Amino acid sequence: MTRAAADEAGRGHSGRRDPAIVMKHGAGGRAMRRLIQETLTRGFVDVAVDGYGIAAMDDGAALRLGDRWLIVTTDSHVVQPAFFPGGDIGRLAVAGTVNDLAMMGATEPMGLTCALIVEEGFTFSDLERVQQSMVDTCREAGTTVVTGDTKVMGRGELDGVVINTTGVAIANTLVRDSGLAVGDRIVVTGNVGDHGMALMAHRHHLAIDAELYSDVAPINRMIRDALAARPGAVSAMKDPTRGGLSSALHEMAEKANVGMQIREELVPVNPVVRAVAEMLGLDPMHVANEGKAVLGVRGGDAAVQAVLAALRRHPAGANAAVVGECVATRPGDVVLDTGLGKRLLSEYEGELLPRIC
Amino acid sequence: MTRAAADEAGRGHSGRRDPAIVMKHGAGGRAMRRLIQETLTRGFVDVAVDGYGIAAMDDGAALRLGDRWLIVTTDSHVVQPAFFPGGDIGRLAVAGTVNDLAMMGATEPMGLTCALIVEEGFTFSDLERVQQSMVDTCREAGTTVVTGDTKVMGRGELDGVVINTTGVAIANTLVRDSGLAVGDRIVVTGNVGDHGMALMAHRHHLAIDAELYSDVAPINRMIRDALAARPGAVSAMKDPTRGGLSSALHEMAEKANVGMQIREELVPVNPVVRAVAEMLGLDPMHVANEGKAVLGVRGGDAAVQAVLAALRRHPAGANAAVVGECVATRPGDVVLDTGLGKRLLSEYEGELLPRIC
Repeated sequence: MTRAAADEAGRGHSGRRDPAIVMKHGAGGRAMRRLIQETLTRGFVDVAVDGYGIAAMDDGAALRLGDRWLIVTTDSHVVQPAFFPGGDIGRLAVAGTVNDLAMMGATEPMGLTCALIVEEGFTFSDLERVQQSMVDTCREAGTTVVTGDTKVMGRGELDGVVINTTGVAIANTLVRDSGLAVGDRIVVTGNVGDHGMALMAHRHHLAIDAELYSDVAPINRMIRDALAARPGAVSAMKDPTRGGLSSALHEMAEKANVGMQIREELVPVNPVVRAVAEMLGLDPMHVANEGKAVLGVRGGDAAVQAVLAALRRHPAGANAAVVGECVATRPGDVVLDTGLGKRLLSEYEGELLPRIC
Repeated sequence: MTRAAADEAGRGHSGRRDPAIVMKHGAGGRAMRRLIQETLTRGFVDVAVDGYGIAAMDDGAALRLGDRWLIVTTDSHVVQPAFFPGGDIGRLAVAGTVNDLAMMGATEPMGLTCALIVEEGFTFSDLERVQQSMVDTCREAGTTVVTGDTKVMGRGELDGVVINTTGVAIANTLVRDSGLAVGDRIVVTGNVGDHGMALMAHRHHLAIDAELYSDVAPINRMIRDALAARPGAVSAMKDPTRGGLSSALHEMAEKANVGMQIREELVPVNPVVRAVAEMLGLDPMHVANEGKAVLGVRGGDAAVQAVLAALRRHPAGANAAVVGECVATRPGDVVLDTGLGKRLLSEYEGELLPRIC
């Protein structure tokens, strides 16, 4: 076991002698990235010579296929509850995987796999709702499930249902999450924090006047149009899921070794989400999204306007906005201009809310 | 909900009013196949025009890629316990997916995805053992993990660890599990029942003089050599995992609409497995394997001998044997010649042992 992992586990709340996994290891933040880097990816032959594999820790892998790329991306979905305002685990599974493919430049999925693990006693009617939701979301994204797997675990061995979806697609041009350079503008495709805040409000029965809905949606067609609007202008992409916008920005800045300056007032947030977040002492920039993307855009104002216009033609991109830019100072850091001053944008070590996706 | 599904659920032991999933729905037998056919695959656009997708219910999907096939196959592994005699969940996950690819004719995996779900409190040392086992098994199979996903569920929300592996590979020639024709010989690549019986003995602390070991292993290189030994001779393949040899034979006979005659004395079984099975009143033909394949072979004795010789050159294929042949009578049925008479080979409706893989 590596030292960082041991430290981590030692700081955990497991209470056991043998260092153990704690919730933050699955939360999308720094603790998870360390676990993956120091333990989970160790020893695997990397395919870097012919492709873009595990060491890149991107949203998926890119494997060489002649002069094109086969993009493969996987996610297991454990969201709780399985049905939530604005979506369900089936929609989440399809959209999550379709969007991860899109983030690497592959906006036309060839197909998805669907591996279902169900707890004994899960009702047929709920299973059918989930299945129908997957069918509908596939249709929306222009794809289908091509193969699957079904396992049942005993009562009490699994809390409800979990779904793994893995997607495959061809990309002619690969977009990496590490592709930012100084001068690139940072674009967010819409309001941040909707998914996590809707789940939080629902799970904790918060009494809110307006209903909050998850943004969960496949955005591959919107991304296709944004990429086509100005070929080569999009330098990097990432979807701000677990860990929210903050984790996505940090990861992109670190990988590209550029500084990032974000103007807080430019980050689009639904006013109800902002109000609830304030009430709970949270920053919407730390809260998960399931139908949003962060884009790096180069090529000056004309390119940025072309990409923004393409995004805004889609309902999911109506609030797309430039929120900042990449700079040469403080490489790897994300500096937030709050309007009252500047500070480093924080990134959560662990989880705001477990089983968010 | 379909009528068959309702009947099924009604016969289940869920005790709820709303029909629910029971253990047999994940057991690899008829109940699972009905659930998949009548519920899980319903409504998805099939890719049959360009590929070989969900409706085929094979070990994976085959998607058109010019004049070749992209094979994609997925499995979630929930085996309990995670460490068992002869293997562990990591080895099982890699071998299971590598073998599913091989069963479709794709014996050189481009890469695997690995999506891990871990229970809070699972120890780092166990996680590292599992991870190292995946690294080692990948090396054995000549492949690697190219991307992954990590989720953590709370204590009591998941029993230990589950791993989804999805594999991608290119096949020049597709081998279907439905490819049998009258006259084809049925070859089994080695002793049947080892995996399931080792788990059963271990889990129930059976006192047995000789230790039983799972056969879990990647057999893609053995299958590559068998296919190359006589190109075109292998008409169909399937790995007899959940449901054992019996389920695999039934599925192959039904899909090809051929009869099958199997001579019981020719089916290779480790004598210890046979003895334990007898003691427990089980038939090794119903017990799961994780390093075996069933092949249909055409082209007469010369072809069969060439394929057998190629298999036997590998340790995993040392006991490869012809066990029967396809006939025109009783299409879809598997007739077992016991030496004392003939009877229909039974197939279990549900599970012998839950969480076998």
